[in-house]
Amino acid sequence: MSNPSQLQPVLDRIDADFDNSLARLFTLLRIKSISADPAFAEDCRKAADHLARDIATLGFEASVRPTAGHPAIVAKSSAKGNGAPRPHVLFYGHYDVQPVDPLNLWHRPPFEPIVTDHADGRKIIVARGAEDDKGQLMTFVEACRAWKSVTGSLPLDLTILIEGEEEIGSKNFVPFLEANKQELKADFALVCDTGMWDPNTPAITTSLRGLVYEEVKIKAANRDLHSGVFGGGAQNPIRVLTRILGGIFDDNGHITIPGFYDGVKDLPPDILAQWKKLNLTADTFLKPIGLSIPAGEKDRLLIEQISSRPTCDVNGIVGGYTGEGSKTVIPAEASAKVSFRLVEGQDPVKIRNAFRAYVTARLPGDCKAEFLDHSNAPAIALDWNMKPLAAAKRALTDEWGKEALLIGSGASIPIVADFKKTLGLDTVLIGFGLDDDNIHSPNEKYDLKSFHKGIRSWARILAALAEAPR
Amino acid sequence: MSNPSQLQPVLDRIDADFDNSLARLFTLLRIKSISADPAFAEDCRKAADHLARDIATLGFEASVRPTAGHPAIVAKSSAKGNGAPRPHVLFYGHYDVQPVDPLNLWHRPPFEPIVTDHADGRKIIVARGAEDDKGQLMTFVEACRAWKSVTGSLPLDLTILIEGEEEIGSKNFVPFLEANKQELKADFALVCDTGMWDPNTPAITTSLRGLVYEEVKIKAANRDLHSGVFGGGAQNPIRVLTRILGGIFDDNGHITIPGFYDGVKDLPPDILAQWKKLNLTADTFLKPIGLSIPAGEKDRLLIEQISSRPTCDVNGIVGGYTGEGSKTVIPAEASAKVSFRLVEGQDPVKIRNAFRAYVTARLPGDCKAEFLDHSNAPAIALDWNMKPLAAAKRALTDEWGKEALLIGSGASIPIVADFKKTLGLDTVLIGFGLDDDNIHSPNEKYDLKSFHKGIRSWARILAALAEAPR
Repeated sequence: MSNPSQLQPVLDRIDADFDNSLARLFTLLRIKSISADPAFAEDCRKAADHLARDIATLGFEASVRPTAGHPAIVAKSSAKGNGAPRPHVLFYGHYDVQPVDPLNLWHRPPFEPIVTDHADGRKIIVARGAEDDKGQLMTFVEACRAWKSVTGSLPLDLTILIEGEEEIGSKNFVPFLEANKQELKADFALVCDTGMWDPNTPAITTSLRGLVYEEVKIKAANRDLHSGVFGGGAQNPIRVLTRILGGIFDDNGHITIPGFYDGVKDLPPDILAQWKKLNLTADTFLKPIGLSIPAGEKDRLLIEQISSRPTCDVNGIVGGYTGEGSKTVIPAEASAKVSFRLVEGQDPVKIRNAFRAYVTARLPGDCKAEFLDHSNAPAIALDWNMKPLAAAKRALTDEWGKEALLIGSGASIPIVADFKKTLGLDTVLIGFGLDDDNIHSPNEKYDLKSFHKGIRSWARILAALAEAPR
Repeated sequence: MSNPSQLQPVLDRIDADFDNSLARLFTLLRIKSISADPAFAEDCRKAADHLARDIATLGFEASVRPTAGHPAIVAKSSAKGNGAPRPHVLFYGHYDVQPVDPLNLWHRPPFEPIVTDHADGRKIIVARGAEDDKGQLMTFVEACRAWKSVTGSLPLDLTILIEGEEEIGSKNFVPFLEANKQELKADFALVCDTGMWDPNTPAITTSLRGLVYEEVKIKAANRDLHSGVFGGGAQNPIRVLTRILGGIFDDNGHITIPGFYDGVKDLPPDILAQWKKLNLTADTFLKPIGLSIPAGEKDRLLIEQISSRPTCDVNGIVGGYTGEGSKTVIPAEASAKVSFRLVEGQDPVKIRNAFRAYVTARLPGDCKAEFLDHSNAPAIALDWNMKPLAAAKRALTDEWGKEALLIGSGASIPIVADFKKTLGLDTVLIGFGLDDDNIHSPNEKYDLKSFHKGIRSWARILAALAEAPR
């Protein structure tokens, strides 16, 4: 058990050391750890080495651990022998980042971090990974550093687990969990990869949408054709693909794939009432991105559309001639990347099969479809009455001076399901991201306030969790 | 007037000199005269210089002529002073070629020509431009060379006009015609840029479809978005684009754009009867390209679908993430290249505007569409009773031992309209291409037989035209 009187000196230490915290984050942000591109494999290893070395200096037993892909880091800190048993928490983050294209839309090089002013005056850290997830995971590491430096120890036992393949589906990390499940035992998990409700209101995410991500390729003729010679007679795979994808939504924004909504439940009336009170409007949510009309199901609130309802997006499409000027070609094939955000009650395998059946049923006789499965993760609904939640919520409320909310997220963090399935752990999802952080996009940023108060939040949460009933 | 007895020695000379003709074609094919890409501007100039020099050696007054883009070539050969007035013919071809991407689908480098065996045993010349249009234009040049070398002259007066921007819309060549119309006066024009009916049946093309080629870009949010955060709430321009393009065809293959078929006439019953007898089937036309079901209007013959009916093809589409793997992005924009083949009676400007109106009417409130006009050319219907046709038809029939057909082509050769409008010339379209030549595609080829008998055909046509009633 920690001594509550230790908390204030830890918070003071965080404030005093903040410039150094920022410098350490910048060092990490300069490493080009793009997991998707094999050209950056060495950078991924550098990021892992750097983090393990840094965390070891705090007094953790830290090691870089090989996987079949980019390495993971495991670091442990526990009270040795004496005293009552303490909670044991597993913290998870990831050091890998998304690719940076289109590079020409970045205002400055993505791996040269800077603190600058946002249009509305907020101080922001700009770099690939500034939020997702280097900035977020460093809020936790810096909180540990402050505790260790002020008190010589942490208020609870802790395993820090950092992976390098979150952005590419954790395909090699899940087997790593399985192979090391004895070593990774804990009471529950903490993940710092989510967001706040708004820049002043902290939040704990208690539901996450699942993700089915399919690539579909339509093939017609055995080669590219000249549209002057064959146009009108030969089938065009772009025509087929656009016709199929163009039919996925009806006029009211509902998804037309048979069986898509099977198992989807309406929100409990009390939650719906709470969400209505949050009053998320097109003006606050869509206007900053240049839009004004919610694009989802017309009979649903915007907050439902983005967090509790399943969705479909075409994330990429390509076929034929896409360079400058014109070419009168009928291509041999065309392809699209199509993803579905799932909610509780939807079975990802059934959704994937329903999509494939939908496409196949609409193929003209001459065309073939090939499918590639990029992701297949169910939605997560956490137990709203989980014990650590109350302690974490109180700590967040103390730090931000505003009641922390329990919210649903539209995004997917498949690892949460794997923690439950492989390690038997429930997860508490706390993060300090904002909707305008441009994660996965050019000019990714993290509010300086998110980084600073994020560190302070974790310092408080560690204390609160240590004292919480178990 | 030429002496008919001169023809046989000319044909013999063509046969004897054929290896050299092929070597000269290869020299031209090695020049990377891709007009679309500014990086190859110097190669375009090289091709023009080379051709002008070569044609000058035949005794033409030949010059390379600057335009606002790639240069043109004008070469003249006429009897000086003595004898009765002879027909004066303007021959047209182009030395520029299409880009070569996707390069990885070529079996060998596109600018290293080779004679090889087609799967079915035909000898073929493989290279970018082997058919379109270097191979075709050289059939004519080599026929002139044989006439000059055997008889010292040509049987008629001739202007050879070769341009370097056919593949990019002849934007700078049309003003060149206008500026030089006195110099380019002739009785009629010959163009060698079309095809045969089949590998054994020669043809004269008497109608050409027009071409409207539009690029449309749909814009939604002001930046790329994360589909986890915004999916369901934010409009996705790929969804909008696929929905709009996917609605262009109805279930029977008709184009749904209001007004699209305005002015389109049915074929005269006698022509339709002739075409029916040609018995163009899916088995002969589509099977070689791996297809089996005509994709056009279900109530039309396949031969109508590809030559006398207007069509639409999406020639390219791109949006969002198209690399390896997955990225959960909602892109800010998506775009497509959409072309329409037009027939007699359709106004290209009206079609363009109808397409733009169709797209605009289907835009959700939050989206914008931007349009770019790549081509805007009407269909051409030549006079079936034009005098030189009969002579040319007879010459072709003599060479191939099979009645030459008068056919419609699905492709567009906009320069034919410009010859009529600017120079007042009717055009006779004769060429030796085949449907499986892969023009505009990887592994473009020209049958060795097309090249050889093409040269012989032109030698006969020149003689026949000289003797034809005027």
